Amino acid sequence: MNTYSAQQSSYQARHSKLARILYNSGLDALVLNPGPSLIYLTGLHFHLMERPVVAFFTPHNPPAIVLPELEAGKTTQLNFAIQIFPYGEDPDTWLAAFRQAARAVDLDQHQVGVEPGRLRFLELRFLEAAAEGARFISAEETLAALRMQKDENELAAMRKAAQIAQQGLQAALASFKMGMTERELAGELTIQLLRAGSDSELAFTPIVSGGPNSANPHATPTERPLQAGDLLVIDWGATYDGYLSDITRTFAIGEVEPELVRIAQIVMEANQAGRAAVHPGALAEDVDHAARAVIEKAGYGKFFIHRTGHGLGMEGHEPPYMRAGNTLKLSAGMTFTVEPGIYIPERGGVRVEDDVVVTESGAETLTDLPRDLKKLT
Amino acid sequence: MNTYSAQQSSYQARHSKLARILYNSGLDALVLNPGPSLIYLTGLHFHLMERPVVAFFTPHNPPAIVLPELEAGKTTQLNFAIQIFPYGEDPDTWLAAFRQAARAVDLDQHQVGVEPGRLRFLELRFLEAAAEGARFISAEETLAALRMQKDENELAAMRKAAQIAQQGLQAALASFKMGMTERELAGELTIQLLRAGSDSELAFTPIVSGGPNSANPHATPTERPLQAGDLLVIDWGATYDGYLSDITRTFAIGEVEPELVRIAQIVMEANQAGRAAVHPGALAEDVDHAARAVIEKAGYGKFFIHRTGHGLGMEGHEPPYMRAGNTLKLSAGMTFTVEPGIYIPERGGVRVEDDVVVTESGAETLTDLPRDLKKLT
Repeated sequence: MNTYSAQQSSYQARHSKLARILYNSGLDALVLNPGPSLIYLTGLHFHLMERPVVAFFTPHNPPAIVLPELEAGKTTQLNFAIQIFPYGEDPDTWLAAFRQAARAVDLDQHQVGVEPGRLRFLELRFLEAAAEGARFISAEETLAALRMQKDENELAAMRKAAQIAQQGLQAALASFKMGMTERELAGELTIQLLRAGSDSELAFTPIVSGGPNSANPHATPTERPLQAGDLLVIDWGATYDGYLSDITRTFAIGEVEPELVRIAQIVMEANQAGRAAVHPGALAEDVDHAARAVIEKAGYGKFFIHRTGHGLGMEGHEPPYMRAGNTLKLSAGMTFTVEPGIYIPERGGVRVEDDVVVTESGAETLTDLPRDLKKLT
Repeated sequence: MNTYSAQQSSYQARHSKLARILYNSGLDALVLNPGPSLIYLTGLHFHLMERPVVAFFTPHNPPAIVLPELEAGKTTQLNFAIQIFPYGEDPDTWLAAFRQAARAVDLDQHQVGVEPGRLRFLELRFLEAAAEGARFISAEETLAALRMQKDENELAAMRKAAQIAQQGLQAALASFKMGMTERELAGELTIQLLRAGSDSELAFTPIVSGGPNSANPHATPTERPLQAGDLLVIDWGATYDGYLSDITRTFAIGEVEPELVRIAQIVMEANQAGRAAVHPGALAEDVDHAARAVIEKAGYGKFFIHRTGHGLGMEGHEPPYMRAGNTLKLSAGMTFTVEPGIYIPERGGVRVEDDVVVTESGAETLTDLPRDLKKLT
């Protein structure tokens, strides 16, 4: 089943939207390899492997796709016209398929946008060899304009992804035991996220970091046992119909030292201030500033070592980014995290992260688990 | 914890091996972004996100790495010298970090190898801007030479990944019920793989495809209920310490038509013939030929629509590839799948996939679940 069936009717509308954005951005074409943008425009899922798959979108021709023969069956259920250029198992034959596709959509000498965080050297070299005189440039802003504002179906999937994540965490915490390792708790959380209904490709591997490890914002779960006196940071998410949630809560294991309790309170207030700054017309950097001001005022500014948030949707990190210097104006439908933190090296860290959508009148927070420092024993 | 701690002592040996291979391949440097090759050489894990991370390896300088400030802590536990070039949250400052790193390892005007299936447009454009006159070319063969032959530690992890996968499948099949959907069975299998001890980043999302869907080798699990008369293809794997298993078995749900029973028998024999062709000195294409000959002789050649196998290790697909035309000579330590299949459109498909390692005297099959068409009811 195509899990995006609810969106089937909207692919052609999305192609039209893309054509308008391409026109405004001075691009003649967009080429995409497998990933969220390709799914957004076609519903087609492929693994990013050693065989290149590239789709071509232009304002005036039907989309085209170069792909392995054994994947060609996936295109037969599409409800829009697409030109397919399949190739066989011998890599020496692949360039010919790229040349045919490039000719079919008239790429030569044109300005071609690519997804900089997705398109690989593998596909780029084929494209350069296939399309004479074409210039390949970043379509990052084009894709942000295409995907940043979520529609009602997308928001419904994100609400569901948030609910599944919250339900999964509660189930996992029910089996918390003093002395279990970070890895054990992370494994249990993963299982409970799947039981709660997450797609099997999780948003990301949960971060479960205790004690000194919690001071590393991007820690990987270790064999360290969780013990009294630890702060415990859990950063996790679920996926539903391809849309993600991304939440962080911090817990106290047994009694923790007073300063750690204090920073948890400060971060909770910074999270609240950041979310309160979200409304249409605010700038992305305003959200960062609002959260950061609370932490700086409390004297912990130098321990808040990352931006306040990132866009969220079909990708774990996508535009818009909530950071100083980003003057992007927020508008209804944009979805992102608000996740201030304080990290005191060797001692512990706190992060409180929620998922937010800009509404016509302000903001809605999609995640509602309590944010205060709950004690686990 | 660094789950690669068992390998810590071998990183420097791997750097020396890389230096020799670079010298022989005419490359002056290798640049890697996050992924298995970077883990193989450093033990460093990063998510491939919007912030570029690039490591530089040259024969005569210590490795260098450009990375976000908030990831810099990961480099402090390494047991070899590394030059770090951290950058902050403002993308306008990133190029400067790349320039410093490129200067430190002397990239200008040199031949620089990259991983074509991993390095992205994002990193490439930074590298091109940072290293004047450098030529970036595919290091595919260099990396294959570096990683293709597994050592004893790597093989031990792969054996364990195979055991976990087999145990997970048996647990999942115990809860098989007529009428459950492909997605339900795939979800249960994922949970049981984690329970059996798989790393939480699974090898890949299991393929569970029944009836007509089994005729699509790369099917995604759907809401279709599994029912009597279906062939059921399950293609799954586990990950242990970063090493993968990748297995396929085909089942009959209730009674299936005689021709489907027959193709299952043919594929089992083709799998056996493919594995029997593996020994040091055989060519990769010999393995493909041996398996394919069985299927062609039985009259189903046109329904075996893919190569016979792919390399397996830290990646789900990696060199060597078992396909016609690949004259690579097999040698001890190479690990790959043998996975012939017959796919009859609209009716059903069969695939039987095992993981094999070339030994000094022949081959060892790492996977040993029965290969005949077991009946599920």
